Amino acid sequence: MHTRKDFVPGLDGVVAAETSISFLDVEKEKIIIRGENLIELAEEKTYFDVVHLLLEGRTPNQEERTSLEDYIKHFYRLPDDTLPLFQLLPKGMHPMDGMRTVLSLLAGYDKDIENRSSQENKQRAYQLLGQLPFITVNSYFATEGKAIAYPDESLGYSANFLYMITGKKPSALEVAIFDQLLLLYIEHEMPNSTFASRVIASTNADMYGALTGAISSLKGNLHGGANEAVMHMLREVDTVDGFEALIRHKLQNKEKIMGFGHRVYMKKMDPRATITKEALRKLCDRDNDYTLLEMCEAGEEIMREEKGLYPNLDYYAAPVYWKLGIPIPLYTPIFFSARTAGLAAHIVEQHDNNRLFRPRVAYTGKSYE
Amino acid sequence: MHTRKDFVPGLDGVVAAETSISFLDVEKEKIIIRGENLIELAEEKTYFDVVHLLLEGRTPNQEERTSLEDYIKHFYRLPDDTLPLFQLLPKGMHPMDGMRTVLSLLAGYDKDIENRSSQENKQRAYQLLGQLPFITVNSYFATEGKAIAYPDESLGYSANFLYMITGKKPSALEVAIFDQLLLLYIEHEMPNSTFASRVIASTNADMYGALTGAISSLKGNLHGGANEAVMHMLREVDTVDGFEALIRHKLQNKEKIMGFGHRVYMKKMDPRATITKEALRKLCDRDNDYTLLEMCEAGEEIMREEKGLYPNLDYYAAPVYWKLGIPIPLYTPIFFSARTAGLAAHIVEQHDNNRLFRPRVAYTGKSYE
Repeated sequence: MHTRKDFVPGLDGVVAAETSISFLDVEKEKIIIRGENLIELAEEKTYFDVVHLLLEGRTPNQEERTSLEDYIKHFYRLPDDTLPLFQLLPKGMHPMDGMRTVLSLLAGYDKDIENRSSQENKQRAYQLLGQLPFITVNSYFATEGKAIAYPDESLGYSANFLYMITGKKPSALEVAIFDQLLLLYIEHEMPNSTFASRVIASTNADMYGALTGAISSLKGNLHGGANEAVMHMLREVDTVDGFEALIRHKLQNKEKIMGFGHRVYMKKMDPRATITKEALRKLCDRDNDYTLLEMCEAGEEIMREEKGLYPNLDYYAAPVYWKLGIPIPLYTPIFFSARTAGLAAHIVEQHDNNRLFRPRVAYTGKSYE
Repeated sequence: MHTRKDFVPGLDGVVAAETSISFLDVEKEKIIIRGENLIELAEEKTYFDVVHLLLEGRTPNQEERTSLEDYIKHFYRLPDDTLPLFQLLPKGMHPMDGMRTVLSLLAGYDKDIENRSSQENKQRAYQLLGQLPFITVNSYFATEGKAIAYPDESLGYSANFLYMITGKKPSALEVAIFDQLLLLYIEHEMPNSTFASRVIASTNADMYGALTGAISSLKGNLHGGANEAVMHMLREVDTVDGFEALIRHKLQNKEKIMGFGHRVYMKKMDPRATITKEALRKLCDRDNDYTLLEMCEAGEEIMREEKGLYPNLDYYAAPVYWKLGIPIPLYTPIFFSARTAGLAAHIVEQHDNNRLFRPRVAYTGKSYE
């Protein structure tokens, strides 16, 4: 019989999987993706370069990049038969729940769903990544009672994604910043949603099943919703002074302030946040209005002084999304959409070298004979 | 940095949660539910008695039982607005994927979805349990291209469930046996689907999210599909001799034979299988045809002699389902439907005393600087 002393709540620090995909190097504060530094990738590569790195083990050459981008365009639009589902998503439904419903239905359209080979799983992942901007944007629009938005196949992946959200052709700067954000959210070792995916995939369940589990996990406000919470906080006030007062007020009331720190690491600023802060500065340059940047910097300073906590990715991602004209309820769905590449790599790896997850419990209930 | 020696594949034997809900006592080979022996419950109580035990901590008195049964009937039928979804499930879609899609959509109909209190979570569980026969049966019918079946509110829970499947008013014997099967599948400590639910719920994700993760897990053929596999095997031949030859042939070819053994325990026959074998005998009495029972007994004997393995619940549940007139593709969906009571209890417990699941990894990928 297992004893309670064996129990580590939340499996904190417990190694639950071997993986060659990614690693948070806590000492060096580096995010490693297939041996490469995510921050260097964010400065030099595109989102789909890192998709290729995750799924194929290396970044693509020019020919592979072009061929992949062309291939993905075939999936910008969902099968026509699925479109009535968007009308069935009730107004006010959480867009993450809408996305999950659509993703779940797509399982019924996969003619080779029982095939778990690496090759088939990767093809499935590319197709789903191609479909995700449509799923993401229209799940949100549907739950807002808006009409379906259609893709523009002449645009690249991130440009089309942003176009579908805003209805406007984005500038080169906007596309570059949005693409970089997708890249920064792409993979982060073993957060809850990735773990949930691997647990589910370990029954030999298919990719749709593992991803619906991940989207459910990411919806929880202890995981995916922080970027939305940051933006709501920034929207409560209009000025730097106002934001400073708000943060100090929240600290006095012992309220949790979202967008700072991380369970596993972060004894300095999240390297991803450093990049995103620069993106925010560029968008402030564009508008010749630095209010949001100055508000964020003021909050950053107070949190460092008062709590010794540093901004994580969500803190600076939120105002960047805002300045790109993206509605707040899409922040978490976009996080999931970007992260699907990393999740898919984990599902492939789990299926390729599987052991069913089946832990035990410490029983604390009524005694028995 | 974590080292690979810390790694236990599949968290085998690792205590992942404290729970007062249930425990597999491996030494005594007992399944304990809230301090009571599942086998004694199966002999004395109904499925909904054990639902009440799981969610409220004790079996109901007569008044509570009647009141609960009346309450559940309000949910036999899904909201009319959701019914067009069944037409959107493509023919040939796996019924578990259909169920998951319907369950996911229902999240949009929960007006108080952000409420995580025990009371609200339990009310939500009762409602979902009331809806599950409709979801289960019609997800299957839809993917077969059949019309929607409607409930009969004059019938009790298990009688209505069976009626919706077969279209015929079941006999008292059939209802009792089906109800007992639901009870035997109701809860089993920390199998993959229960673990997946708790991992997801730990982000503060809602019950719909945790259950869609569980249904995805249970679909995997290393978890939920064994009862279907057993029945397909029994259907390959017509006679006891034929079945003996089939089993010996599979053993010679080193094929896995479903319906035997369990990862955690089972050094003798699954106590649940003993009960289900008796149910099979009663249905053979009804038909005055003992072929299926004799085939199963022959297989049981060969597996004990050749492999030292004993039947688990799925082995005798399959022919019982068959004799109740239940189509094979419904066996796993019915398993999920029955198990939802146990899953809901775990989700309530996780929300009431939460710690986010966030393990680490052993990195085996490319080295880096």
